[in-house]
Amino acid sequence: MFILMMGAKVQLVAPTLDPIVSESGVKITPTMTFADSPEKPTILFVPGGSGGVLKAAKDDTLLDYLADRGSKAEWVTSVCTGSVILGAAGLLDGYKATSHWLVRDALTAFGATPVNQRIVIDRNRITGAGVTAGLDMSLQMVGRLRGDDYAKSTQLFSEYDPQPPYDAGSPEKAPAATVRLLTDMHRGYSEKVKKLSKRAIKQ
Amino acid sequence: MFILMMGAKVQLVAPTLDPIVSESGVKITPTMTFADSPEKPTILFVPGGSGGVLKAAKDDTLLDYLADRGSKAEWVTSVCTGSVILGAAGLLDGYKATSHWLVRDALTAFGATPVNQRIVIDRNRITGAGVTAGLDMSLQMVGRLRGDDYAKSTQLFSEYDPQPPYDAGSPEKAPAATVRLLTDMHRGYSEKVKKLSKRAIKQ
Repeated sequence: MFILMMGAKVQLVAPTLDPIVSESGVKITPTMTFADSPEKPTILFVPGGSGGVLKAAKDDTLLDYLADRGSKAEWVTSVCTGSVILGAAGLLDGYKATSHWLVRDALTAFGATPVNQRIVIDRNRITGAGVTAGLDMSLQMVGRLRGDDYAKSTQLFSEYDPQPPYDAGSPEKAPAATVRLLTDMHRGYSEKVKKLSKRAIKQ
Repeated sequence: MFILMMGAKVQLVAPTLDPIVSESGVKITPTMTFADSPEKPTILFVPGGSGGVLKAAKDDTLLDYLADRGSKAEWVTSVCTGSVILGAAGLLDGYKATSHWLVRDALTAFGATPVNQRIVIDRNRITGAGVTAGLDMSLQMVGRLRGDDYAKSTQLFSEYDPQPPYDAGSPEKAPAATVRLLTDMHRGYSEKVKKLSKRAIKQ
């Protein structure tokens, strides 16, 4: 949705311009280095992931960069487990926030107050739930930045008229067995995130 | 959603492994060449775009490749204007199909019957409307390939519980002025797609 904001420049920022293999196997080349990126971005956005998030939340170079730009950006945002990285960078201390439902509670360790909502806005911090919340979140941000009419044209252009074939998109709506299955499958990961949080807050 | 199907291998196939700059400015590296890609893919998926689609629909190497794999794939699928490319490759002749609403009618020139639906399934052809229809479409396909329970866990894992802040995601729901604005803005593009269609069917 951000890309549909005329005049907006979307940059994929990383330590170097070397290609990065995402967790889905897609090799993406950053468009800008940390050093060259704007001092005061309009939107600082941190995506989520699984193993990569654990690594990112211990990466001092990344956390220092985020803490710096996050203190100057107009909006500090994330989707999915990206809020764990924001938290580790100290950017959610004293803020309400959300994350993927499997790790949401772990945000307390960063001084944040977890909220069970698809999008949580607290002052200039905007966090989204599991990955697909990014659509709703970015559309809401287009509305704030460009007005409701512009946002509606963005929604129409991307034909965002969701018609999911099932109604199992949240732990409250999905069958109990499905929630249990995913919770059990990812227990190891959730535990790692919790430990990470504790470590981060001790620093 | 396809990436969440355990055991599935998602490949980004292109003529060479040279990085490709997408229309959104993201530089992506293909994972497989045309020559090395499976003879009989389970799913052949063609994404959409704007200018790139016009170019793709005139690219004989690409169209030959799609026509070949499309005749052998279990499922031949697209989202957004990707169906224009499928059409140009001759893969929608005699099929019901959809596309981005701005170019949907142009599908007639490829011998297809345009249907105003978010997802159109006709035998093994599955086409989706504008880009975000990909979520609903791929979730439906996960259901067909792995069963409803698996698809529900995929929906829960990606927390796909859409809550768009506006209800303007289709020409029927959006304000008339918004529909007119986008139609006028993209008239040149729609005309080009229509001409392309006529050219392709003459071959």
